[in-house]
Amino acid sequence: MAESVQNIRRVVWLMFFAVLFACPAMAVSIPSGGISSFEEWEKAFNKWDSGRAEWKQPRMAPNKLPFPVDYRDWRVLSVSHHEDQESIRVILGNDVAIRAAREKRFTPWPEGAMLIKVLWRQRRLPTWKESWVPAEILGVGIMYKDREQFADTLGWGFSLWQSEHFELPEDFNTDVQGCVQCHSPLKDSDYVFTVPAIFP
Amino acid sequence: MAESVQNIRRVVWLMFFAVLFACPAMAVSIPSGGISSFEEWEKAFNKWDSGRAEWKQPRMAPNKLPFPVDYRDWRVLSVSHHEDQESIRVILGNDVAIRAAREKRFTPWPEGAMLIKVLWRQRRLPTWKESWVPAEILGVGIMYKDREQFADTLGWGFSLWQSEHFELPEDFNTDVQGCVQCHSPLKDSDYVFTVPAIFP
Repeated sequence: MAESVQNIRRVVWLMFFAVLFACPAMAVSIPSGGISSFEEWEKAFNKWDSGRAEWKQPRMAPNKLPFPVDYRDWRVLSVSHHEDQESIRVILGNDVAIRAAREKRFTPWPEGAMLIKVLWRQRRLPTWKESWVPAEILGVGIMYKDREQFADTLGWGFSLWQSEHFELPEDFNTDVQGCVQCHSPLKDSDYVFTVPAIFP
Repeated sequence: MAESVQNIRRVVWLMFFAVLFACPAMAVSIPSGGISSFEEWEKAFNKWDSGRAEWKQPRMAPNKLPFPVDYRDWRVLSVSHHEDQESIRVILGNDVAIRAAREKRFTPWPEGAMLIKVLWRQRRLPTWKESWVPAEILGVGIMYKDREQFADTLGWGFSLWQSEHFELPEDFNTDVQGCVQCHSPLKDSDYVFTVPAIFP
């Protein structure tokens, strides 16, 4: 009897750990960061909004890639979410990129195409528990096609702007090398992960 | 010894079932539908593109809510994905809605605001397995704020346009009643699930 109880206990613990360790790669654990209610959203909104005038000035990355200050008026190329990074994203394009996507001219993407990936930590929507939506903004990643200017980095200018104030990473050049390394295997899709969403 | 083996076997099976049944609500099972490669994306793209001229004509739902044919040029309010419905979405707004979101005037949303939710089945990106991206389009859902015209449906006109050709559901009125029922509890957020993403 004692052994049987011990077995049951063992099974229960093993089930617990099986669930715990089998699922971390899945987008189900509740994100640790901030926003889970409308009040928190409002606080976060006010926080970035207060710093907005300052960072909304044109900025340039060390590789001479400017930050497109009007990016949030751009149109959608696609959306994505990551089960490992607990993030949700939208990928926007400048006019050149949007036109190319709609005409299926993106292998390779035309010169002048700019793609910007906006990343948020994801959270459960309090009013709809199965729905995952953006929480704090994590930053944006930019790709700009210019084969000549960016010949050393796959023909693309890369930049990363982090946190809600869009700061450059401390070691910008190393970070760009990280971009290049990760995008290098994608020669067939012109080094771009995004496939435009079918958007009738 | 035999009992010990049996116990181990039992534990292994229980772990298997624990993982199997603990995770179905999570967005990890591979969607049954079509697109998993670039070739399939291209086929699906061609399929809707061929029917485009026809459905791009202005259309009207039975409740007099027109389909906004230029919706894919609209700007982003938010994005979401659902672990139960295996879908990924982007929520776009017309100019009235975008302005309201950026000025935090959406409790209630102003008259004339239109929100459109574009739904795709989600799929794993073949080149980045942890990334979930849009596959086939499932349809769009529309909300249009007009307290007078849509007094009977929470002050919002609802419409649903299904599949890649954006057809109205056969029993449109019943479907709209479904919308109303589901949105009714959300009085505090003017019957809208979407909270605009923080978009610096």
